Amino acid sequence: MNQSTPLINHFVALIRLEGVEVWENVASDLAASIIQKLKLTVIKSDSHQFSPQGETRVYLLSQSHLAIHTWPEDGVVHVDLVSCSNINEPDFMLAIKAEDISHKFIEVKTQKVS
Amino acid sequence: MNQSTPLINHFVALIRLEGVEVWENVASDLAASIIQKLKLTVIKSDSHQFSPQGETRVYLLSQSHLAIHTWPEDGVVHVDLVSCSNINEPDFMLAIKAEDISHKFIEVKTQKVS
Repeated sequence: MNQSTPLINHFVALIRLEGVEVWENVASDLAASIIQKLKLTVIKSDSHQFSPQGETRVYLLSQSHLAIHTWPEDGVVHVDLVSCSNINEPDFMLAIKAEDISHKFIEVKTQKVS
Repeated sequence: MNQSTPLINHFVALIRLEGVEVWENVASDLAASIIQKLKLTVIKSDSHQFSPQGETRVYLLSQSHLAIHTWPEDGVVHVDLVSCSNINEPDFMLAIKAEDISHKFIEVKTQKVS
C-alpha cells in the first residue's frame, strides 16, 4: 500500500532503566520531552495507574497519538508514537532523552514501523 | 532486549476502504470488533473529530492501548494495538474484520511489531 497518502510516521522505543527510585514521573517526563522536542500538539490526554504499579499514558495529538507504558517491576518503558508530521528516527531518539531520566537508561531500542 | 519481560504484543493494520458513505462509525465499529474479539478491557477512551474530516480514537486498556485513525480523504484507516495479553497475528486479522465495514476493505496490511 502506498503509505505516502496519508503520511504516517510510526516510531517505537523500548527502554530499560536502572536506579529509578520514583517511577511516578517517568512516563510524564518522557511524554513532556517528546511533545516539546517534536513540536506535537496535545488535544486530549489521559492516564491510568495500575495496581500495584505501572502506568499508561495516552495522548490524542493533532498529529495522531502517543502512548507510554511503564513496567517498574521490569524497569521497562514502552513508547509508541504515530504522527502525520515529518519525524525521522534520529529526531525521535533525541526526543526520548528526557533530561531527568535519560541518564538512567541502560538499554534503548528504537525502531521505525513501516 | 529480552521482550519476554514484560510481554508486549504490538500489531498494526493499514486498511484501505472504498464505497464508505458514512465515515463517522468506521473507527468505533472497528474498535468495538477488536475489543470484543480480543477480549480487551477498556479503562478509559477518548475521540476527536478533525475538521473537515478524519477521526482519532484512543482506548486505554487494562492490557495497554488501542488507537485508530481514519483519513476519509484517502480512504485509509490505521489501527495500532499494544497489548500485554497473548494475541497472535491471525487473531488480530480476524478482529479487524468488523461486520459492518470489512466488506468495504480493498487492501489490508497487518504486521506484528517486534
